[in-house]
Amino acid sequence: MLTNVEHIGIAVRDLAGSNELFAKLLNVQPYKSESVESEGVTTSFFQINQTKIELLEATRPDSPIARFIEKKGEGIHHIAFEVEDILGEMERLKNEGFILLNETPKAGADNKLVCFLHPKSANGVLVELCQEKKKT
Amino acid sequence: MLTNVEHIGIAVRDLAGSNELFAKLLNVQPYKSESVESEGVTTSFFQINQTKIELLEATRPDSPIARFIEKKGEGIHHIAFEVEDILGEMERLKNEGFILLNETPKAGADNKLVCFLHPKSANGVLVELCQEKKKT
Repeated sequence: MLTNVEHIGIAVRDLAGSNELFAKLLNVQPYKSESVESEGVTTSFFQINQTKIELLEATRPDSPIARFIEKKGEGIHHIAFEVEDILGEMERLKNEGFILLNETPKAGADNKLVCFLHPKSANGVLVELCQEKKKT
Repeated sequence: MLTNVEHIGIAVRDLAGSNELFAKLLNVQPYKSESVESEGVTTSFFQINQTKIELLEATRPDSPIARFIEKKGEGIHHIAFEVEDILGEMERLKNEGFILLNETPKAGADNKLVCFLHPKSANGVLVELCQEKKKT
């Protein structure tokens, strides 16, 4: 079950500048910044009610965010839905015909396990499923 | 103040087909469909917690949605933030340097007054402000 729009990811060229811009837009400061080396991104988070706005800057030219900006320019990159059982949802969506970009959940920003669905199977929308990692 | 991600707008070519696809993805049925003649769109809404997913199909070739799809293909079109005082927010954001696409609030889908900000002033993101119309 998809229980919440956990965050909306936005691809930006210059995280420092975009942090200032989005702080003006949203009238709130980002509450944290975090790098995800495996994805080649530095992220920054703003909280609006139960949804986060996640700004994403590429840290290297082969990062998915760098390739996205090269192709489409800056803008909305993905929608992430919170799930309670990521393995169950991945199985359900695969059976419904959606294409998973990773067959096992991987570590994302913000202490999450994540899986992406291919945009070509979802009307051009890059969909992320994310589940909070259990505290150990 | 932006109080909630009210909805995420997604541009689609074929609303009937996309309704089926998103019902599978979100595991919930759309709860309503509505046309906004002034914008040249037919919309369909899904509810996930406090945020709606709004699918948008163009009803004529000069609709903003038709032009978006022609240029960028299907996909995420805009983010709409709920505001309590749309006139106050429009004034605040204008003073912060954002470009308003309409200088007075206009009628949107779902009983809302809306205003759009130009994507070039917001990192490539088309931002909508929306305020629930007062019941009369």
